[in-house]
Amino acid sequence: MLRVGIVGATGVVGQQFVVALQAHPWFRISWLAASDRSANLTYADALRDRKTGARRWFCDEEPSGEVLNLTVDSVNQFDPGRVDVLFTAIESDQARELEPVFARTTPVISTASAFRNEPDVPLIIPGINSDHFRLIERQREQRGWKGFIAPNPNCTTVGLAISLRPLQARFGVKSVVMTSLQSMSGAGRSPGVSGLDILDNVIPYIPGEEEKVEAETRKILGKLDDSAVTLAPFDVSCTCTRVNVSEGHTESVFVGLGRPASVDDVRDTFASFAPDFSDRDLPSAPRQMIVVNDDPFRPQPRLDRVVDDGMATVVGRVRADGVLPNGIKYVLVSHNTKMGAAKGCVLAAEVLVKKGYVPGS
Amino acid sequence: MLRVGIVGATGVVGQQFVVALQAHPWFRISWLAASDRSANLTYADALRDRKTGARRWFCDEEPSGEVLNLTVDSVNQFDPGRVDVLFTAIESDQARELEPVFARTTPVISTASAFRNEPDVPLIIPGINSDHFRLIERQREQRGWKGFIAPNPNCTTVGLAISLRPLQARFGVKSVVMTSLQSMSGAGRSPGVSGLDILDNVIPYIPGEEEKVEAETRKILGKLDDSAVTLAPFDVSCTCTRVNVSEGHTESVFVGLGRPASVDDVRDTFASFAPDFSDRDLPSAPRQMIVVNDDPFRPQPRLDRVVDDGMATVVGRVRADGVLPNGIKYVLVSHNTKMGAAKGCVLAAEVLVKKGYVPGS
Amino acid sequence: MLRVGIVGATGVVGQQFVVALQAHPWFRISWLAASDRSANLTYADALRDRKTGARRWFCDEEPSGEVLNLTVDSVNQFDPGRVDVLFTAIESDQARELEPVFARTTPVISTASAFRNEPDVPLIIPGINSDHFRLIERQREQRGWKGFIAPNPNCTTVGLAISLRPLQARFGVKSVVMTSLQSMSGAGRSPGVSGLDILDNVIPYIPGEEEKVEAETRKILGKLDDSAVTLAPFDVSCTCTRVNVSEGHTESVFVGLGRPASVDDVRDTFASFAPDFSDRDLPSAPRQMIVVNDDPFRPQPRLDRVVDDGMATVVGRVRADGVLPNGIKYVLVSHNTKMGAAKGCVLAAEVLVKKGYVPGS
Amino acid sequence: MLRVGIVGATGVVGQQFVVALQAHPWFRISWLAASDRSANLTYADALRDRKTGARRWFCDEEPSGEVLNLTVDSVNQFDPGRVDVLFTAIESDQARELEPVFARTTPVISTASAFRNEPDVPLIIPGINSDHFRLIERQREQRGWKGFIAPNPNCTTVGLAISLRPLQARFGVKSVVMTSLQSMSGAGRSPGVSGLDILDNVIPYIPGEEEKVEAETRKILGKLDDSAVTLAPFDVSCTCTRVNVSEGHTESVFVGLGRPASVDDVRDTFASFAPDFSDRDLPSAPRQMIVVNDDPFRPQPRLDRVVDDGMATVVGRVRADGVLPNGIKYVLVSHNTKMGAAKGCVLAAEVLVKKGYVPGS
Repeated sequence: MLRVGIVGATGVVGQQFVVALQAHPWFRISWLAASDRSANLTYADALRDRKTGARRWFCDEEPSGEVLNLTVDSVNQFDPGRVDVLFTAIESDQARELEPVFARTTPVISTASAFRNEPDVPLIIPGINSDHFRLIERQREQRGWKGFIAPNPNCTTVGLAISLRPLQARFGVKSVVMTSLQSMSGAGRSPGVSGLDILDNVIPYIPGEEEKVEAETRKILGKLDDSAVTLAPFDVSCTCTRVNVSEGHTESVFVGLGRPASVDDVRDTFASFAPDFSDRDLPSAPRQMIVVNDDPFRPQPRLDRVVDDGMATVVGRVRADGVLPNGIKYVLVSHNTKMGAAKGCVLAAEVLVKKGYVPGS
Repeated sequence: MLRVGIVGATGVVGQQFVVALQAHPWFRISWLAASDRSANLTYADALRDRKTGARRWFCDEEPSGEVLNLTVDSVNQFDPGRVDVLFTAIESDQARELEPVFARTTPVISTASAFRNEPDVPLIIPGINSDHFRLIERQREQRGWKGFIAPNPNCTTVGLAISLRPLQARFGVKSVVMTSLQSMSGAGRSPGVSGLDILDNVIPYIPGEEEKVEAETRKILGKLDDSAVTLAPFDVSCTCTRVNVSEGHTESVFVGLGRPASVDDVRDTFASFAPDFSDRDLPSAPRQMIVVNDDPFRPQPRLDRVVDDGMATVVGRVRADGVLPNGIKYVLVSHNTKMGAAKGCVLAAEVLVKKGYVPGS
Repeated sequence: MLRVGIVGATGVVGQQFVVALQAHPWFRISWLAASDRSANLTYADALRDRKTGARRWFCDEEPSGEVLNLTVDSVNQFDPGRVDVLFTAIESDQARELEPVFARTTPVISTASAFRNEPDVPLIIPGINSDHFRLIERQREQRGWKGFIAPNPNCTTVGLAISLRPLQARFGVKSVVMTSLQSMSGAGRSPGVSGLDILDNVIPYIPGEEEKVEAETRKILGKLDDSAVTLAPFDVSCTCTRVNVSEGHTESVFVGLGRPASVDDVRDTFASFAPDFSDRDLPSAPRQMIVVNDDPFRPQPRLDRVVDDGMATVVGRVRADGVLPNGIKYVLVSHNTKMGAAKGCVLAAEVLVKKGYVPGS
Repeated sequence: MLRVGIVGATGVVGQQFVVALQAHPWFRISWLAASDRSANLTYADALRDRKTGARRWFCDEEPSGEVLNLTVDSVNQFDPGRVDVLFTAIESDQARELEPVFARTTPVISTASAFRNEPDVPLIIPGINSDHFRLIERQREQRGWKGFIAPNPNCTTVGLAISLRPLQARFGVKSVVMTSLQSMSGAGRSPGVSGLDILDNVIPYIPGEEEKVEAETRKILGKLDDSAVTLAPFDVSCTCTRVNVSEGHTESVFVGLGRPASVDDVRDTFASFAPDFSDRDLPSAPRQMIVVNDDPFRPQPRLDRVVDDGMATVVGRVRADGVLPNGIKYVLVSHNTKMGAAKGCVLAAEVLVKKGYVPGS
C-alpha cells in the first residue's frame, strides 16, 4: 500500500479525495493537512462548524471512522518521510507557494490551476493523453526535484477534451464552439453560489473559466515532441454559464472535423473509444470512458452524472451541423467533482504508479 | 376602439392575450372562444378547475372583472360581424383547420406554427421586418380572402432574430451558432414540464425547436422582392435545451460577420438599434428594442426578462470569437411569453393597424 | 422462490416494485400487468414513449434485462396459477373493482387507498403493527376468499406512525399536530406536479391527504381485539403542503404525551426502538427503523431519504413543546416511495411470508 | 419633507430601505451610512463589487439616479443636524453599540433584534399594536434621550402576530402551534443560503428563530399598562424551516381560541380586520392588512407575496382543528422583506409621524 496525503483535506475537494481514497485498494490515507485552525484536531473535529457543532460534510458518501480519527496537521508540518504521494486541494495562490516545496521530494497531484500552463508541467486526463506524463522527466531535470507537480485540468475542460479525443484521432478537429451549463458544485462552498442568485435563473458568466477551457483543451490534445507540447492546431470558443444543478456539467458542443463524417460514424467513434491505459485494472477507471446514450432527451445531468460512479462522459444528440466545415454537434454530461476533479486525480495517480513515476510503488 | 377576439382564451397563451389586451388603448376584447366544454360559461367559470373549483390562472397580472364576466363561445360560433381582428392561441393542427375559415373575413394574428413556412404568409417580428407585411396583399389575392393570417415566430427565434438584425444591417451575417437555455413556460401547461424532470436537471432536447429556429430566422431576415421572401443567405445551427427557469429564454450566440468588427462596434450597434416602426407611439412597443447590459454577469433571465415589461431583448457579454470568420459572441435574454408570444402579437397588430391592414381602423 | 405479479407495472409505483423485486432473494417477478395498450408488448416496449421512442423510466436504479424482456399482459388476463402474491400499483377506482377479483385466490398487497378503511382489512406498517395481519383471517372468513387484500398506508402516514409508535408504547400519546412538507414524487407522474407551479413556491394543499393521515394513523396505532381494530384514542390534526423536493417527505410533529418525559428520554426512546418482527433476516428491513440524527440542521430530505436505502425514518430536532400537555416536538424525514410505498409493501410481504399467510411459501 | 438616514445602506435590507424611501411623499433620503470601506464613495460606487465591477443590487426595483449620486459616510460620521429620523439595517452586535448613540438625539427605527426584549422598548407592528409606542415616553425619560429606539419584530413573527390579532380581539387566543416554511431572503446575502444546500431540500432549523417568534408574538399581543407590557397569556410553540423559495414566508398555524368559533366566523374575522391606524392615508399602508383567499390551493408564496406590494398578510385554508381546545388552523403567506422588514419599518415611521413622535414633522 502506498501512503497518500491530502492537503486541504477539510474543504469540499479535500473531502472528495477522502471519499475516493478511503477504501482504495492501492492507497492508504496517512496524512491530512489543512489550515492552522484545524491543526492538531481530529479530522472529525476539524469538520465541525465552530458555531453550531454540526459536521460540515458535503459528499454523499460518508467518511470512514478510521479517517475521522486521524489527526490533522498544518500544511507547514509536511514530512516527506510520511507519504509517497500528495493530493492537493488548495487555492491557486497557495498552490503556487506550497506545491514546489512538496515537489522537491514528493509527487504532487494537484487540483489547482497554478502550474497548468508551465511548459514542463503535464496537463493530463488519464486515458486521453497519459503520454504527456513524460514531461515529468524534463520537469525533474530542470527544477532539480525528486517529486513533480501534475495538475488536473479544469472540470469543464475534462468532458470536452475527452469527447474530442476520438474525433481528433479519427477525423481530425479543426474548430470547436462550446456553451456550458455548469453545476453549482464547481463553484465550491465558501460561499459558492447563493441560493437566491440561482433560483429561477441562469448566470451567464464564470470568471476565468472560458479562457481556461480554451487554453487547456489545446494543451491536452497537443502533441508531445522532445519534451515539449505543441498546442493542438484548432481554435476553441466557449461561453460558460451556471445553471441550477447540483453536480454534473452539461456542454453543448459544435465541432468542425478535419474531413466529412456521417452522424453514425461519429456516434460509433464515441462509443468505441478506448482509453490509452492498456491495463484495465486501474481501480478508479470507468468501464467505458465515453458512453453514448441514444435517447434524444439524454444526456441529462441528474440521470447521467452517476454513470460509472461519475467517471464516464455521457454523450448524446449527435447531429450534423451546417455552419462549421464538416460540422457535427452533440451534448455531453461530465461529473465535475468525480472525473472532473478528485477521483480523476486518483485515476491519474493510478496511471502514474503503473508507469513507475511514484517511488515506493 | 377596434373589437378583438381571442381564440383559445382559457389556455396559457390565451390568458396572456387577455392580460395584453384588457387595458389596451386601441383594442377592446369583444369575443372569447375556447373548446366546447367552456362554451356558454362566463370566462370566470371557464377558468375554474372542474374538480377543485380553484381558478386556473397562470399570469402574474389578474384578469379584469369585465373580462371575467364575458361569456365564452365555442370556436365554431365565430361571427365575423363581432370582431375586427382575431388573436389565436391554439395548437397547430387546429390552427391549420380553423384559421383559414377566420381569414376569409378577418385578420388573424396567430401564435401557431401551422402557416409560418407558407410562401405567401409573412413571418414578422415588429420592428425587425415589418415590410414583409406586404406579403398580405399576395396572400389575399391568391387565396381570395378579405382577412389574412399573420403568425408570430417561435419564441426562441424572436430574441435571436432581433439581435441579428442590426448586425446584418451594419456588418452582414455569414453564420450563426446558438445554444438556448429555455424556460419552462415555453412548454405550456397541459402538462408542460414536470417538476420532477427539471429539478436539479437540464433537458437537452425540445422536439422540433431547433428546426423552427433555423428556418424561421432565415425567413425573418430574408429579403422581400416582388412579393416573395428570399431566405437570408447564412446558416444557423442550434442546440435547444430546457433549464429550471420559469420565464425568459437565455441564448448563447456565436456569429460570423460579413466583415471584421471590434467588440465596441458590435456593442454600440446593438445599443443604437432603431426599430422599423417610425411611429414610436405604438402602445406595446418597448422604449428600446435591444438593451445592452455591460455587467459581465448579465443578462440573467430572472432579472432581465422584466425589462420594458418583457418587450426588450437584453444583450450582454459581447466578446470576440476565434472560430467563426469575423466571429463575435454574446448572450441574450428574451421574454418568451411577452415579446416572444402574446404581447409581441399585440405589437404586430398595432403595426398592422398603422399600416392600414385592419379594416375598421 | 415465490412467484410475484405486479399490476400497474409501467407506472411510477409499478417501476418501484420492479426495482424492489428484481433482485429479491425470495421473490421472482413472474407476471407484469398494465393497461390494454401495453398488453402483449415486452416491458421494454411498454415503457417506450409513443411519440419520441424514449424510455419512460423514473427510478434511479435501472430495470434488469430479464424484466425488460417479460411480456406485459392486460390486467384482465390474470391467471391465479401463475403467481403466489400480487403487488398492485393502480388508481383507487380501479383497485376497488379489480382487487376483490384477485383476492378470491391470491394475496394482494396494495398501494391503493380503496380498502384501507374497511373494518376487516388490516392497515399495516411492518415493524409497527404486524399483529393486525390477524384481521386477514376475519377477512377471508367474511368474504369467502382464499387470498386477501392488505393495503399499505398513505406515504405521509408512514413516517408519522412509525415515529409515534415508540412514544405510544413508552409514554402514551394524547394528541398530535403535524405539518408536512411533501416531495413531488408523491403526486405521481401523469402529470404530477408542474415545474412552473412548484418553482420558487410552496403549494399548501394536497387534496384528501390530511383526512387520510388523520384516520390512518389512528387505525395503525389502534388496538386489535377479537378481530376488530379500536382506533387509537388520540386526535391528529394535519396541514399537508408540497415543496420543491423530488423525494422524501419532511414532517414537523408536535405530540402531547400521556405523561411527562424529558427530551433525552424521548430521544433515546426513538433511538432504541425495536420493530415487531423478531426475525431480523427480512431482506428489505432497515437495520434500524428509526435513526436519530443529533445535528440540529438534520434531518434534511436530500441527505436523509437515502439512509438504509430509504427504509429508515430519520428523526431530529427533539425539543420540548410548551403548548400541548406533556408536549414534545421533532422533525422527521421518511422516503415516500421506498418505505412509504413499493419497498414498504415488499417488506410487508416478507412479514406475511414469515407469518405463513402466503400459500406456496 | 422629513430628512431620513439609512444606516447599513449597502446591504440587502439597506437597499430595501432605499427602495421603500426613494420616492416617498413624506421622506427624503438625506444620509447614507455604511462601513468604513464604503465611506466617501458615491452610493453607486459603494455598491460595486471590488473584483468584477458589477453592481451588487438585490432588489427588483432599481435605485434612482439621485440616490446613486449620494456620498456614503462611515457610520461614525453621524451628524444629528442632518436627519430627522434614522432607519438602521445592521447586525445586532453593532446595533447594541451604535443605536443608543443615535437615539440620544434622533428617532431610530431598527431592524436589529438587539433591543426588542428591553422592557421600555416598544415592539410594534403598525396596525396591530401602535398603542405600544407610548413606551417611547418611558424610554426617553429613563434613558434621558431626545430620540428613541423602535425595533421591528422578526420577519416570521410579523405574519403570525398580524393573523392572531383579530382572533385575539374577537375570540381570545389560548395557544398557538406554528410551523414555518421560510424563504431564503430572510437569511441575507453574505453568504445567505447556499444554492447547493437548498436545492431539492428543506433545512429544518434556523438558529434563534423559534425563540424570537415565541417571545415576540407574546410581547406584541401583550397589554400595555402604566408603561409596561404584560406578555399575552398564551403559549406559542414553533418549528422554523427553510425551503427553496426566494421571498415570502409560509406559515402553517394551529390556534386554540378562547371560545368556540365556526370556520366561517374565523374566516370573516380575518377578512374584516381593521388596523389600529385611523388615518388610512399612510403612504405605505396596505389597502387591507389581511386578505383572505378562498382558493384551497392558496396562499402560495410566489403568487401571494406580491399582494398590495408585499404589505398584506394573505390567509387561506381556514379549517377546524381537533387537537387544541376550540382549535382552528390556517395557512398564511407574509412578505418577509416588505411588511416583514424595511417597508414595515417605513410604515411604522409614518405612524410615528402621525402620532407626533418625530420632531421636525
